[in-house]
Amino acid sequence: MATRKNYQRPLDLRTGRVDMNHGAGGRAAHQLITELFVAAFDNPLLRQGHDGTTLPDASGLGPGRWVLATDAHVISPLFFPGGDIGSLSVHGTVNDVAMSGATPMYLTASFILEEGYPLADLQRIAQSMGQAAREAGVAIVAGDTKVVERGKGDGVFISTTGLGWLPQGIAADGTRARPGDVILVSGSLGEHGVAILSQRESLEFETQIVSDSAALNGLVATLLAALPDKDSLRVLRDPTRGGLATTLNEIAVQSGVGMHLRETDIPVLPQVDAACELLGLDPLYVANEGKMIVIVAPQAQEAALAALRAHPLGAGAVRIGEVVADDSHFVRMTTELGGQRMVDWLSGEQLPRIC
Amino acid sequence: MATRKNYQRPLDLRTGRVDMNHGAGGRAAHQLITELFVAAFDNPLLRQGHDGTTLPDASGLGPGRWVLATDAHVISPLFFPGGDIGSLSVHGTVNDVAMSGATPMYLTASFILEEGYPLADLQRIAQSMGQAAREAGVAIVAGDTKVVERGKGDGVFISTTGLGWLPQGIAADGTRARPGDVILVSGSLGEHGVAILSQRESLEFETQIVSDSAALNGLVATLLAALPDKDSLRVLRDPTRGGLATTLNEIAVQSGVGMHLRETDIPVLPQVDAACELLGLDPLYVANEGKMIVIVAPQAQEAALAALRAHPLGAGAVRIGEVVADDSHFVRMTTELGGQRMVDWLSGEQLPRIC
Repeated sequence: MATRKNYQRPLDLRTGRVDMNHGAGGRAAHQLITELFVAAFDNPLLRQGHDGTTLPDASGLGPGRWVLATDAHVISPLFFPGGDIGSLSVHGTVNDVAMSGATPMYLTASFILEEGYPLADLQRIAQSMGQAAREAGVAIVAGDTKVVERGKGDGVFISTTGLGWLPQGIAADGTRARPGDVILVSGSLGEHGVAILSQRESLEFETQIVSDSAALNGLVATLLAALPDKDSLRVLRDPTRGGLATTLNEIAVQSGVGMHLRETDIPVLPQVDAACELLGLDPLYVANEGKMIVIVAPQAQEAALAALRAHPLGAGAVRIGEVVADDSHFVRMTTELGGQRMVDWLSGEQLPRIC
Repeated sequence: MATRKNYQRPLDLRTGRVDMNHGAGGRAAHQLITELFVAAFDNPLLRQGHDGTTLPDASGLGPGRWVLATDAHVISPLFFPGGDIGSLSVHGTVNDVAMSGATPMYLTASFILEEGYPLADLQRIAQSMGQAAREAGVAIVAGDTKVVERGKGDGVFISTTGLGWLPQGIAADGTRARPGDVILVSGSLGEHGVAILSQRESLEFETQIVSDSAALNGLVATLLAALPDKDSLRVLRDPTRGGLATTLNEIAVQSGVGMHLRETDIPVLPQVDAACELLGLDPLYVANEGKMIVIVAPQAQEAALAALRAHPLGAGAVRIGEVVADDSHFVRMTTELGGQRMVDWLSGEQLPRIC
């Protein structure tokens, strides 16, 4: 009965820590879920309190299809300038859904917690997650929590899955790029990866580098609204792990095309450039969490750039190159000095646990 | 270029191990995904190869709603009699969706791998997962893979999310139990938890105890087909973590009722009973992964039991008690000796990492 009494007091969110009981499916687990997670994510769907959450009637959405995406998040450190694993786990999955052209609507979240992790920090993460979800207009509708012994995890891992609605007539997958299309990016590159690495290495820069972590669904909606001919939107993709270079190579292969970039047109903040030099990184391979690549038909370039630039998350949108015919599916770049360089896939490990 | 060449050879599935590169989003990650995961889960939707997977047109499903469920799986050991973390991660989430009365259709899977984990074992897990999904009639349509450093994980963690379709007129959530309803279980209890714990403790029993891990969606469909009045089905729930006792307490609170059980009617295999005695466990609190609680209106009892017993996974279905009016929402049990006992929630940790 002593054990039972413990869990009738409110959760100690000041000095308490995750213990194995929080993952065992009894009173302690129930308490963690209701007092910490449900409180932070609060919405009527989650309050159903079942293992399976029944979603609202979707019959009014008109013709279209659902899009599903999932991500495991293992970022280290858990808190970083510009976000934490909670906001990142929302942004990452919202963006994966949004990059198909779909409107993200629902998220699920599953947590793998390490025994001993401070409940206060877990609450900060959950609250940040709830806030990110509200800002992105998505509801966290189902969840699960497991606990592993000390030394068998690393604080907090979060897997999120997103469900979104893709109206008929919209497509933005990686197979649609055609020679002559133009390649845009929504802003400067490399901030997320460099912000994380600066934290890990305790590097100090004059200007702190802040992760660009953000939900891009609003930016996608703005772009779509500005393009009367939906077919002129060819590809949307967020250059996360592997960065711009790897993402463009994937698109090149999927579409069976080549690409040509101009190095001087690729936006990188001076402090990111400096940090990359110090860390021995190429910003083209560094992860972003709030930027997107937009490939459009040439006649849609002006409308697309104007729409992107009118949104706070796309203020720095620019054209960086073109899609070209190339049976080798190579991505090439004209360098600052006027030479030509191959932009290959990311080969080995560059930045582990960046998301 | 040396690094690049490594990843142009096929994955070494005999002696290779997970390395940090497999989570970095470059060639190595791409290779792991295509040669190991996509090969094991093979279906046209997954082969879309985008971060967001567009599902088939669902407009022909008729009136109804979608159900989402998610689970993190951290079971230890990863392989056990009757299954492994791969099959379990399919069964667990398929069952969470099925317990709402919905038909599970799609799964997503995200993997958190520990550096150094043998690729051959990972392949066994992925193949087992693919087989479990095919047997359950669901498609694994999207995935993600992350790698953490040695000592920051524990081999393999898998989070799965399930999406299913709930036709109009079917409901089975935990709020629907009413006094007078009868409580059935689909078979004997405690096998999953005891099978796992026997492995951990290296206990040897004369008869090996095998996990009951199984997908219950087929059993649910059989049951639903046998009940002409869908409202006579009140609650479906799989007694996983916390076992029968915790699950019935949850339903009692959600429905605002009490329950009365008869200990002599609760089916437990003799070897499970013996193992529980040895391990100091109460089988009512031990996790199941292939059993379900079915609460039906009294007039539906015979049809429900007959339908369950006609299916291989429900052959041992029996009535174990009744729903009663009780403002305290207590679950009580008449013991073998004729006394009365409170069946409380699971209070503390009983079996960590059981799923």
